[in-house]
Amino acid sequence: MAARSKPEGGNGGRPSEFALIEDLFAPLAAGAPGAYGLKDDAALFSPSPDHETVLTVDAMVAGVHFLPDDPPETVARKLLRVNLSDLAAKGATPRGYLLVTAWRAETSVDWMRGFAAGLMEDQNLFGISLWGGDTVTTTGPMTLSLTAIGEVAAGQMIRRGGARPGDDIYVTGTVGDAALGLSVLRGALDMPDTADAAHLVRRYREPEPRTAFGPKLCGVAHAALDVSDGLMADLGHICEVSGTGARINMESVPLSRAARAALARDPRLVEAVAGGGDDYEILFAAPPDRASKIGAIAAESGISATRIGTMTEQSDGVSAIDGAGNKIALKQLGYRHF
Amino acid sequence: MAARSKPEGGNGGRPSEFALIEDLFAPLAAGAPGAYGLKDDAALFSPSPDHETVLTVDAMVAGVHFLPDDPPETVARKLLRVNLSDLAAKGATPRGYLLVTAWRAETSVDWMRGFAAGLMEDQNLFGISLWGGDTVTTTGPMTLSLTAIGEVAAGQMIRRGGARPGDDIYVTGTVGDAALGLSVLRGALDMPDTADAAHLVRRYREPEPRTAFGPKLCGVAHAALDVSDGLMADLGHICEVSGTGARINMESVPLSRAARAALARDPRLVEAVAGGGDDYEILFAAPPDRASKIGAIAAESGISATRIGTMTEQSDGVSAIDGAGNKIALKQLGYRHF
Repeated sequence: MAARSKPEGGNGGRPSEFALIEDLFAPLAAGAPGAYGLKDDAALFSPSPDHETVLTVDAMVAGVHFLPDDPPETVARKLLRVNLSDLAAKGATPRGYLLVTAWRAETSVDWMRGFAAGLMEDQNLFGISLWGGDTVTTTGPMTLSLTAIGEVAAGQMIRRGGARPGDDIYVTGTVGDAALGLSVLRGALDMPDTADAAHLVRRYREPEPRTAFGPKLCGVAHAALDVSDGLMADLGHICEVSGTGARINMESVPLSRAARAALARDPRLVEAVAGGGDDYEILFAAPPDRASKIGAIAAESGISATRIGTMTEQSDGVSAIDGAGNKIALKQLGYRHF
Repeated sequence: MAARSKPEGGNGGRPSEFALIEDLFAPLAAGAPGAYGLKDDAALFSPSPDHETVLTVDAMVAGVHFLPDDPPETVARKLLRVNLSDLAAKGATPRGYLLVTAWRAETSVDWMRGFAAGLMEDQNLFGISLWGGDTVTTTGPMTLSLTAIGEVAAGQMIRRGGARPGDDIYVTGTVGDAALGLSVLRGALDMPDTADAAHLVRRYREPEPRTAFGPKLCGVAHAALDVSDGLMADLGHICEVSGTGARINMESVPLSRAARAALARDPRLVEAVAGGGDDYEILFAAPPDRASKIGAIAAESGISATRIGTMTEQSDGVSAIDGAGNKIALKQLGYRHF
């Protein structure tokens, strides 16, 4: 873990970055022998026997991927979880992570402590540790990035490509909550029920990576990814790489009670459900004869999986239909961050 | 490789980020099967048999770690090389990397193309590939981070800890050039000889990671790191973790012709040599009976290694002496980025 400016730099009266790293981050590395207490230049990792290493990285910018007044604990958890979600969708089990923080000079030590506390809480939840990182200062918006490292049985990583016409399309959990939650936070969506509003906001701020579900899809799903760009856009990604088309039945798309309430009041919000991002659910394709296996995985992991459509020939394109079988025109096919 | 904003976002008339990734970055992943052409959510890696994975990450902020008007090719190479330098100092051989770019809306496509060209050039030089990454936009200074992944024979990674009193202290190449080069770029150091000035600037902009040297130190050096914070500060890091002191003979510290010329004109620049950072040479400790082995490694790799001091008892502290054996007072023990 390198702090790229020196103690004598002062940092406007806050503790030196070396001391901060020691204080805030070293406890996050305590569980990982290969992190060397963040006192070396690199981390060491070996996956379990007959496993391969899976790596992914995602960055978040204040004002783009999170709101500047989001609590630091949830910013930390979101940063970690969006990456764990990528691993889960590939069938990988998370092991550790590297962290880069570009904080502002005026970022308070309290904020940093909250950030570290959020990481610690999730580390315990997901059984992972901090292995290393870098700390820099920016005059621009806070920018955070995280490299997550996991492992998967050799040859078993679930790819985006691999879906075949005739495969069932599934999604875990519920879709659209995060996009609606962002609308609530921006004051663009009025939710009279405060519990519903809180549910949507939490889903936006703290995605739930399906780490208990994804690894069980190895050898079961033909293709998978996590829904970050939006249901239809991400389905398009699978189709593009797999060389298939897809047809989604919008009435099958699983919605939370809060999302159903929002849609009941304004049916146009279906576009936020189909096109909104940040769900971090696993979207996957599997042959119909694996339906009972998928049901068993859902039961074991306590995470629902709903069949929402069918993979088709590439020439059919990617479409959403309503209950009567009519195509729905969805303007907002991909999610644009605010 | 995820682009975190959508094509319809427009991005001020420049090609969409998806298209840019395709265009600029996909060729950088061509050599790595586990990168899946940057069309998946994660990369897959297995080290060679009986090897472990070594991971490191470093970030650079425009105006802090590089100058906003540095050529994009050299910014790319510096970003890659500072990370390869960490791997080399650990005895690891680089294999691939993940890249996060936080570009500004006004960052030109030409700049990005230059950046990618710089990466490609160095990939070919170091035998590595891009495995994945993330692209975001910031309203602040451009921020770049890179996770480098390498491999080392199991159990052979060279740590910071491990130095013992009586070990010889060595450094590869020459020290101080980068700090002096930064002074040249900032107009703070006048070098009448333009070749000398160009040498110093190049050493600042394009560090030379000692990838041909570092892996040969496995089983030879007791401890190593790369000089990024400054010679004395980094020596202090080794001593801190190893529980030793150290004494450097400043007259033994290897200097380039350009650095010697600068010091001849202004002897006070010795502080930039001892305290300046960004050298990215390997500083290491090894027992005296390995001197001939180290000489052979230097000859094989074509990279010089100079004995500059001795590890001592911790109670002796970390000091620099002149040719007469007198302690030199060095104010600037650590490097502060501009």
